Amino acid sequence: MTLPSIIKPDPKLDLVLERIVDVPRELVWKAWTTPKHMLPWFCPKPWTTTDIEIDLRPGGIFRSVMRSPEGQEYPNIGCYLEVVPNERLIWTDALLPGYRPAPEPFMTAVLTLEPSGKGTRYVATAIHRDEAGRKKHEEMGFQEGWGTVVDQLVEYIKKEM
Amino acid sequence: MTLPSIIKPDPKLDLVLERIVDVPRELVWKAWTTPKHMLPWFCPKPWTTTDIEIDLRPGGIFRSVMRSPEGQEYPNIGCYLEVVPNERLIWTDALLPGYRPAPEPFMTAVLTLEPSGKGTRYVATAIHRDEAGRKKHEEMGFQEGWGTVVDQLVEYIKKEM
Repeated sequence: MTLPSIIKPDPKLDLVLERIVDVPRELVWKAWTTPKHMLPWFCPKPWTTTDIEIDLRPGGIFRSVMRSPEGQEYPNIGCYLEVVPNERLIWTDALLPGYRPAPEPFMTAVLTLEPSGKGTRYVATAIHRDEAGRKKHEEMGFQEGWGTVVDQLVEYIKKEM
Repeated sequence: MTLPSIIKPDPKLDLVLERIVDVPRELVWKAWTTPKHMLPWFCPKPWTTTDIEIDLRPGGIFRSVMRSPEGQEYPNIGCYLEVVPNERLIWTDALLPGYRPAPEPFMTAVLTLEPSGKGTRYVATAIHRDEAGRKKHEEMGFQEGWGTVVDQLVEYIKKEM
């Protein structure tokens, strides 16, 4: 089981994307935790990511700005909760940097990476406050969007890292 | 400086109680992290604490139930964020156990303990979402309430531990 025991996804509330990718987990980790390596793939095209800020420690900032094809920008700010290099990254937008309760909490995200042959078992879990949060995220296209992001990530790693 | 560098209290938003107490920090830590040692002092009398649940690890539950003199019960549930034995305990009600975003976030609390002579420098910091949160907590009697709790804690340690 990939998930840490403290995380118990509830199918009514949460969403999970699992993929086997043919790139090593050390590069997936690096791509997820280095702004310059994250900008190119973090949003499903034709959306783009215009800014990423990372302070990679519990309570440290994780901020991103996504831009729609029409040029509208959507900033998101939160903080990391757990940072286990090459294995597990947990962050939330329910807390701002320094663990300050946030005005508009939406989800906690858990990324877990395990070796799988020469590649990586990649599991991304989105944990929501309630069923409405899960439904909204589904309607925003969680499976397709997060899936496309994995494709873009793998393509980027193969070409550029 | 007692606080970890990730915590930056803002006087407009946050509240801090600092005391030097003449009991060793190992006992303060034990009293703060063991339900049977916590029940007797956690609420300013004549309020009482009727239940405490502790899973002492990041993401683990911290749940308490306070009872008013009239018999009304007030449950509070959250999770730990950082657990550094004898030094630092951070928890929040912005996240439920397993880091699930909570329906009614109010604060993150930071308890830091440092040796001070034969006693302990005890600093409790309450971090709120906004100015309204800080004001509400002030009006609930933060300084007096949290101060009384320290007195009760010290008295309990001296008598019972």
